[in-house]
Amino acid sequence: MEEAITDDVQLNVLQERPPMVPEAFRDSRIVFLANTAPALQMELLSQIAEPEFVAADTMNCWIEGRRDDLMKLLQKIDALVLNTGEAKLLTGDFNPVRSARKILAMGPKFVIIKKGEFGSMIADRAGDCFILPGYPVEDVKDPTGAGDSFAGGMMGYIGRNRGAVTLQMLKTAVAYGTVLASFTIEDFSLGRLSSVTKQDIDSRFEILKRVTQL
Amino acid sequence: MEEAITDDVQLNVLQERPPMVPEAFRDSRIVFLANTAPALQMELLSQIAEPEFVAADTMNCWIEGRRDDLMKLLQKIDALVLNTGEAKLLTGDFNPVRSARKILAMGPKFVIIKKGEFGSMIADRAGDCFILPGYPVEDVKDPTGAGDSFAGGMMGYIGRNRGAVTLQMLKTAVAYGTVLASFTIEDFSLGRLSSVTKQDIDSRFEILKRVTQL
Repeated sequence: MEEAITDDVQLNVLQERPPMVPEAFRDSRIVFLANTAPALQMELLSQIAEPEFVAADTMNCWIEGRRDDLMKLLQKIDALVLNTGEAKLLTGDFNPVRSARKILAMGPKFVIIKKGEFGSMIADRAGDCFILPGYPVEDVKDPTGAGDSFAGGMMGYIGRNRGAVTLQMLKTAVAYGTVLASFTIEDFSLGRLSSVTKQDIDSRFEILKRVTQL
Repeated sequence: MEEAITDDVQLNVLQERPPMVPEAFRDSRIVFLANTAPALQMELLSQIAEPEFVAADTMNCWIEGRRDDLMKLLQKIDALVLNTGEAKLLTGDFNPVRSARKILAMGPKFVIIKKGEFGSMIADRAGDCFILPGYPVEDVKDPTGAGDSFAGGMMGYIGRNRGAVTLQMLKTAVAYGTVLASFTIEDFSLGRLSSVTKQDIDSRFEILKRVTQL
């Protein structure tokens, strides 16, 4: 499985009132704009005083239905996180290498393409890239939340490190994202993730390194 | 694309007469049994005096139609090379980790599962594994022959090295296989592969290392 299929999208509370970032978070250094309408993502971002690194997620319905807004957002973020199908939809190109390059030309410094069980790819504007397989999970119960866990693990690692976000830092960040996602899919909801310790995470990080490094 | 679809299989000359290994090749140390009927693969193998490392490829029609022969062959080889769909068909298990383990229980010391553009995985009996993404090819013209080039590159590397074939040696071997396949798919037939130099291969090997190593 490398692509997600959308049956329905409900904006719920986000449709009624634009979200307000609480005062205590307005000095955030690292910002992740989780998947929602790009106009809302922009409005959220405008409430952060001086973000140093901004990543955003998106999905098919915004790529198709809110393309202009999304294009504006892409000018304001450092990294776009999206899956293979979304990258294809955004660029019209099914080849991940070309499609990544086309997305970088739209604004962000980095693009991170998620390939479900096949892992992920980072590409940067210098033409460099990094490809990491998925963690070899034996019992997948439910892939729901894998992408958000991936982004959470990635942003968590970035947030613990000071200094400019480089491709080298992002490599380790996506490896942590991959590990977090590997726990999420082992149970429904937060069943597995909620009991995960720092030691569990570090242990899988070491396994992921061992099984992917020559 | 991670799975192959078979429209038709023609054994051609192999159906008329069992293949004879020329005298000059009967002392081969390293043997690759390319995909054909398992009974023929076995007959070929029996003509090699003292093989040190034997790998075999197979496909859906033998898994479904010649299962008993294939099971006998699996007892006689060191490594089985097959794609995701074939592994699923052979074990009835869609999970690559479990499916690899089930194949190892059928006989071989190593199983190498090919995942098309998503790369490949090696698993061994000690429960260890290695996962390598595909080479990021920008212009794929025709995937025909990718699997054979992969096996060729892999066996070529093994053949150049003395000593027992270990997981560590196989890691580098599948990386070379991945590189060889990346050239094959850039043109039809041997269009690209025929003009490839050792330097081209080593250069892509270094790139593959750079884009996959943390």
